[in-house]
Formats: sequence, C-alpha cells, structure tokens
Amino acid sequence: MSELFDVLNPPGFRAEARAQGLTLQRALYEALKRGIVQGRLLPGASLPGSRELAQELGMGRNGVVHAYEQLATEGHLQCSRQGTVVAALGAGVHGSGRAEGHTEGRKGGRASADGERPRRAALSRRSEGFHRLRDPAQELLPFMPGIPALDAFPIAQWDRLMAQSRRHSGSDALCYRDPSGEPELRQAIATYLRAARGVHAGADQVFVTDGTQQALELCARLLADVGDTAWIEHPGYGGARTALLQAGLRLQPVTVDAEGIHPPEAWWAERTPRLVYTTPSHQYPLGPTLTLARRMQLIEQARRHGCWLIEDDYDSEFRHDGPPLAAMQGQVQDAPVVYLGTFSKTVFPALRTGFMVLPAAVAEQAAGVIGAWAPRGHAIAQRALASFIAEGHFTRHLRRMRQLYRGRQVALREALATHWPWPGEVLGAQAGMHLVLSLPEGLPDHALCEAALQQGLSPRPLTAYGTGGIGGFNGLVMGYANTPAETMVPLVRTLASVARSLA
Amino acid sequence: MSELFDVLNPPGFRAEARAQGLTLQRALYEALKRGIVQGRLLPGASLPGSRELAQELGMGRNGVVHAYEQLATEGHLQCSRQGTVVAALGAGVHGSGRAEGHTEGRKGGRASADGERPRRAALSRRSEGFHRLRDPAQELLPFMPGIPALDAFPIAQWDRLMAQSRRHSGSDALCYRDPSGEPELRQAIATYLRAARGVHAGADQVFVTDGTQQALELCARLLADVGDTAWIEHPGYGGARTALLQAGLRLQPVTVDAEGIHPPEAWWAERTPRLVYTTPSHQYPLGPTLTLARRMQLIEQARRHGCWLIEDDYDSEFRHDGPPLAAMQGQVQDAPVVYLGTFSKTVFPALRTGFMVLPAAVAEQAAGVIGAWAPRGHAIAQRALASFIAEGHFTRHLRRMRQLYRGRQVALREALATHWPWPGEVLGAQAGMHLVLSLPEGLPDHALCEAALQQGLSPRPLTAYGTGGIGGFNGLVMGYANTPAETMVPLVRTLASVARSLA
Repeated sequence: MSELFDVLNPPGFRAEARAQGLTLQRALYEALKRGIVQGRLLPGASLPGSRELAQELGMGRNGVVHAYEQLATEGHLQCSRQGTVVAALGAGVHGSGRAEGHTEGRKGGRASADGERPRRAALSRRSEGFHRLRDPAQELLPFMPGIPALDAFPIAQWDRLMAQSRRHSGSDALCYRDPSGEPELRQAIATYLRAARGVHAGADQVFVTDGTQQALELCARLLADVGDTAWIEHPGYGGARTALLQAGLRLQPVTVDAEGIHPPEAWWAERTPRLVYTTPSHQYPLGPTLTLARRMQLIEQARRHGCWLIEDDYDSEFRHDGPPLAAMQGQVQDAPVVYLGTFSKTVFPALRTGFMVLPAAVAEQAAGVIGAWAPRGHAIAQRALASFIAEGHFTRHLRRMRQLYRGRQVALREALATHWPWPGEVLGAQAGMHLVLSLPEGLPDHALCEAALQQGLSPRPLTAYGTGGIGGFNGLVMGYANTPAETMVPLVRTLASVARSLA
Repeated sequence: MSELFDVLNPPGFRAEARAQGLTLQRALYEALKRGIVQGRLLPGASLPGSRELAQELGMGRNGVVHAYEQLATEGHLQCSRQGTVVAALGAGVHGSGRAEGHTEGRKGGRASADGERPRRAALSRRSEGFHRLRDPAQELLPFMPGIPALDAFPIAQWDRLMAQSRRHSGSDALCYRDPSGEPELRQAIATYLRAARGVHAGADQVFVTDGTQQALELCARLLADVGDTAWIEHPGYGGARTALLQAGLRLQPVTVDAEGIHPPEAWWAERTPRLVYTTPSHQYPLGPTLTLARRMQLIEQARRHGCWLIEDDYDSEFRHDGPPLAAMQGQVQDAPVVYLGTFSKTVFPALRTGFMVLPAAVAEQAAGVIGAWAPRGHAIAQRALASFIAEGHFTRHLRRMRQLYRGRQVALREALATHWPWPGEVLGAQAGMHLVLSLPEGLPDHALCEAALQQGLSPRPLTAYGTGGIGGFNGLVMGYANTPAETMVPLVRTLASVARSLA
C-alpha cells in the first residue's frame, strides 16, 4: 500500500488537515476520494482495517469507519467481511430518473448525504475531483503567479507583425494547416533554442502546441499507454498533473529537495516510470535548479529503464543570478529527453502557443501520428511569431523583461523584509517570475489566500501545488512579474494586515 | 465475436481487399491490427481457429495462419494450444537497445519482418494505426471535401473587426481567459442558434471549443469513462473516430441508410452505448437527413438507456432544397442531447473555433471541470467573432455562401452528367459542401484518388470514411465549395481521363 502512503502522507496528515481547516474524518474522506478518482488507488486495491489506519494517522477509529462508509455509499469503496477494497470503475450514472442503464459494477448506487449527488453523477467519473471556476479578472490581480508583465508587451509592434503576416499570406492561411506547425515558426524556434538553450534539434523535431499542458498531454499519448506510470514533481505544476491524468497515466509524485527532483534510487526498479516530468531550470513552484549531477543520473537511469524525460524548461528565460545551465536535452548526445517550452510567459498567454522538441529518432513518425490526431490553424499568428523571433524582437523583449522582473523581485523581497511580520524564508529568487514565502504553522496558506483575495490580492497557496492537495507544505506562491515595483510596499502591507487578522 | 464481424465484415471482405489492392492475408492482418490497436478487439478476446476463419472469409487457411503469426510476433496476439487471443496491452517498447524495461505482458517482443519495427515501437501502442502526413497545399486542391470558399470570405471586414476588438480590449485580452469562452461569443452563439436552428439554450450552456474534434473529445471525457461504448456512424466522420478513441471509448459502428443512422433495435440492450454520435442534418459523408421518426426513436431510447446523443449539426447552414429540419436539441424538451457546431466551414478553418451546447442540468458542473482541464486564450478573435455574428455579418455571409455553393454544386452535377463515363449515382445533394459519387466495382476509390492527386485533384475515397478503413463502399467524396463553377467541366474531364486509364 505504498500508494496509500502517498495519498495520505501519514506523517503530515494531521498537520495538513489542520492547515486546510478540515476535520480528520473529512480530510481522510477527501484524500481517499481524490486518490480513487485520480486513479492512484486502483480498483481492487485493499484498504487497511479501520483500527490499523486510525492508529497510523493518529485519529479516532470512528472517523475512519465513517469516511469508509461515506465512500462506500458513493460507490467508491466496497466493504464486505473480507475487508474494504476500491470499487471497480463503472460507467457514470446519468441524470435523475435515467439511472437504470448504468448501475453495473456499483454497490448501492450513488445516493448520498450530499443533496447535489444525483446531478453531479451525470458527468463521468473521471470528471470528478476537477473543479475550477475563476473569474478571468483574478488573473490580473497582484501576486498571481505565472502572469507576465502584460502592459510591457510591445503590442503595437506585434500588431504590425500580425498585419504584415496577413498581407503576405494568401487564402491558404485561412485553411487547415500542418498540425506540426508552420515551417517558419518551427525553424525560428529551433534556431533560437540552439543559441539560447543549447538544444540540438532540427526544425522537423520542433512541434508547435497550444501550450505546455497540451504539449504534455500529446507527449503522454505519443510515448506512453494508459496505465503507464509517470513521475511528477511534488510539489509541482498542476497543469502537468491534469494533462498526465487526462492521458490515462498513473502518477507517482516524487519529492523535490534543494537540488531538484529526487527519486529514491530503488523506485527506478520498483516503480519504473514510462515518463518523468521535471522542471530543471527553476523547479515549479519551489525554485531549485536541478543540479548537473542529478541531471546525469536522470539521463542514465532513463536510458537504463527505457523511459523518457520530459524537460519543461519553464522560466529558463528569466535567470536573475547569472547564465543558466544549458538544457538537459543538449547536455548528452541522444538523451532520451523531450524538451518543452511555452510562449505564454515570454510573449503572452492568450496566444496559446508553445512547443515540444522530440528526439530525432521518433520525430518523423510522431509527425504522422500528430497529423492524424489534431487539426491546426492560426497560421497568421504563427508566422507573425516566427518574424518576432527571427527579427530579434523576441530576445530584445526577453532582455527587457529580465531586467524588469529582477527589479520587481527585489522590490518584493525588500517589502517582505520590512513589512512582513514573520521571519519567513523566501525561496526561488534565482530565476523566474515568482517567489515562495514560507508561512508560520498557525497561518494556513489556503485561508490566507482566501482572505487576501477579498482584498484584491491573488497569491496562491503552496498546498495547492501538492499532488492531490496533500502537501506537508505551507507557504505563498507570489508572482511579481505583472506587479509594478512601486506598488510592492503597500501590497505587502495589505497582505500583512490580512495575515495578522488570521494568525 | 460480433466485434470481429464488425472489424472484418466477412460478406464484403474479399471485395474490400481487392478494392484496396491488398492480398487477402495482408488485408486480414491490417484489419485485425487496426481492430486491436483501436480497442475494438479487447485483450483476452478469442479469435476463431484458422480453418473456421478462412472459410468465413473465403480465403486460404495458410493466409490466416500467417496473418495470426505476424500479429503474434508483433505482440498483438498470443497463440497457444488453447487458441489465439488478443494480447494484454503492455507499455510500449522504447528505442533500440533500451527495450529491457518494458517487455512485461509481451510474447516474443516486437521484432518483425518489417525493418521499420524497432523505430516505430518507440512510440506508444495507442499511437499505432494513426498516420497522416499531408501537405497543407493539398487542402486547397479542387474537390477536397470540407473546405469552404476561402476567397469568398469577407477578409477585409474580418480584419476591421479584429482591429476593433484589439482597440476595445485591455491587456486582459492578452491573458488567460475563461476556458468556457468569452461571454460575448457564448451569448452571440446562443442567440444565433435559437433563431436559426431552434436550439434552446442559455449562453451559460454554450462552450467555445477549438472545433468539432476537440468538442467531441471534451464531451467524451465529460460524459463517459474509459471503456464505455460510443456508437458512431458507418461510414462517418474520421475526426469523430479519432476523438472518441483518444478519449478511451470503445467504438461501435452503426450502419447508415437512406434515413440516417440505423441501429438494430436489439443493440440498445445488448451493446448499450454511453454516447451516440450522429450528424442528423446531412450525414457525413453519405448525405441523408435523419428522419423525424428516427430522431424521436433515438431520443426515446437514449432516455431509456441513460445515454447521451451527440448531435453534430455539420452542414445544416447550407441547405439547398428548402428549410432544414430544426435541431434535435430543441425538438423535445430536455432531450439528452449535446449539440455541436463549428465555424471552420462557416467562417474559416484556421480560426479553430467551434462550440458545444450542453444540457442545462450539467452545464454549470461542466464549466467547473472544463475550467480545471484546459486553459484558453484568443480573446481578441473570439470578441471579433461575437461582433461578426451579432452585427449580422455572419448570416449575410451564410446567405451568400449558400447561393454560391448551390451554383457550384449544380455545375459539378452537370459536368458529371455530361463528362463522367459511367452512370454514377450522386448522393447528398440536398445540403452541404460535397457530393458522393458512387464508382463502378472495377474502379477502386483509393487508387483513383491517388492517381487524381497526381493531376492536382483531391477528391477523397469513400472507403476512407469506413470504420477501420473496412467499408463495403466504393465512391468519391467530392467537395465543391472551394472550387469555382466555371472550372467544373475541365476538372471533371481530367478526373474522367484519370479514371478511364485505371478502369
């Protein structure tokens, strides 16, 4: 039951529940349910007896019994004299009154204490556990991570390039286009990556995507089958979790330390991954750079075990403490690495454009598969982006943004040093667009973020980056790229006063 | 083994193989392999003995034995004294020399007579069977189906709306946007659909997608689980097959007759679907309109068996013989229907914009799930499209295109009547952007299309629309929307001379 250990994290279980403001019974219920619907606890897996689990988690036995019962009522668990096991996945039950057709493999149907149940059940089981309704305006609030300086983007120049791209394009640009991307853009990306990141790849290895999340899903489908294992960083990028789960993979969270992702040696043999997702330049969200020694170990082990490394080179463009390490992709010849990048941070998010670089050995075959899988368009914007890169506007913009972001980061750190009431550790300053501020134990990050949002601030809780929401972390992920330096002091003072009112 | 029957289609098997220019052994090998990799023949399914199958298909026993052996060598089948069964899905094998980690569940590895094998094997098993490399220029050739009149699109007006949308948008339009779509566009679509198609839905039931294929995949994930059954039309839209397979569904092809999709009554109980995909306005590609009686039967059965109908209202905008039937979605109150539409044909394909309309009962919950699944952007284009619709340009453009396409269709039919050497049946003229021309038996559609492409013509073979490529059809799908009327005679003469040289 190592999966159960990962899902529940017994050493941190009580602290986590407290941090999230949940009773232990509720925290257990939610963690198990997430584990089941996300496929980390598989059908047929046995759960320990209530007495044993209660002891392990330091909670009362009744709480375990009630959590099990609730999950059984909902069809997630099957309880019998032989013990408690994860239920087989059946088809989801349809809307009210139309349930008869779809109850095979379920014990007790899906009625529950929760009045919403019958409606929720109309969606598929795999939809469960996913929920986010966020006003797009929230993306623009101070401290929202992952948002570049939108006002600093040279939009007039971009508009000129778009108009030029339109003028130079025939009606072919209105039609379906090569699903791998426009040739000009693939070439511009390959040339840029070689110079800036030491990535060795021809244009035919570069595939244009809608962004990193779509690229990851594409990778997972191209390179892995349903039920294969993918290692992900913990804490890590939520979009990666979503993409890999969508592609039907089983996720194995791997803890991150000061040198980056750190899988226990034995896992390579015991929990052999098909894919390993990692953010080596600036681990998201904690910030460490994956050391050279770790990179070499990863490559060697990946070769030995026939797995692929997915190098998400997020934030490599914004290095604040000197030249960055070159990409893993180019560090070793023919490394089993897929390299991912996005223009969401370096140009603007609404462009929905990123890319993946596949090893030469599979690129041609992948092009045929991608050609059959997904139509593509947006030729005008892709050609404009190619000009933006090829004519040097892109590197000029990056240079300006690096300087701007560094100034904003310094302002944020100074404001925290002066106006934050606790001696908080600040992580991840060497690169990127955000910092992580650790919080004192009595100040749960979820609660703080919720209260801060009422004041128009949008830092994100570090616990939200834990796999399945179970973290053992407590901190704020604070974006600074889209927040002017001169506003940092008043904003941090507002945040501090919100925090004081909660602590 | 009804699945095997569907995969092999014994009555048409020999004719099909001949039409595709394959030996019977090769045709059997390919059909079985497609059936396995597309999940229509599931792991553990028994295949009949070689003698029995040979008799059923009217081929020599040796051919069956060799096809089985080749599939066993490749790991798709397991042969033992107990018989031949479909092998369990294992993880794909990595590139050459790195295969050790991933051979569980395979018999005999994946070496094969085919020299390409080891490289192909580097991709996932689910990638197999998908391959398309098409020069985007081919999309613009005469007779390519599914391409609107690109030169007739009011591009200057569109550019003005885009520029206006830019000017009126703040930097928020550069940021991540509501994954459900811009509110203005959702409202404009809802208003248009109510007036034009009798679709009853509020703006909050309308979800903007990247097109029909992405909408279908989203539907499948939202409403069905891995392993659920989806019925699809046969012959039918290849993008639907791809999308539903990608989402992990099992496909059950359902034959189309002159009144549209026609499932055997018994299948509702025996092969109960979770989703039924259908193109009621103008079945793609054969062209019949789903009759009112059939629509009512579908809705009633779907209700009874707790399944969802997916109504792809493709081509409803271009009705050539009078007012179209209203959409199923609005024909019965609270029908279990998801309505799909696309702007790829009515505006232009490169826009990559379509939509789905979900029932009110699940729309709100789906918004939360979609919000967690996929980021979205392209706000400027979505707002421009909203203006294009709301200001009446869209319906004006449709009116002009209906007239233009009708004229082009008449020209094509006249050219065929005069210059086509065989008395070919022409199907699907009452709506849309393409015709289907049936071919004489001695003139295989695949071979004709290949030869026509050499002459710069791009009709598509009807067999390509059959599920798994096995069809029992022989014809040309001929798009006419993007081909000027005055060119039809010389183009049909060219096509006729190509055909004569093959017959």
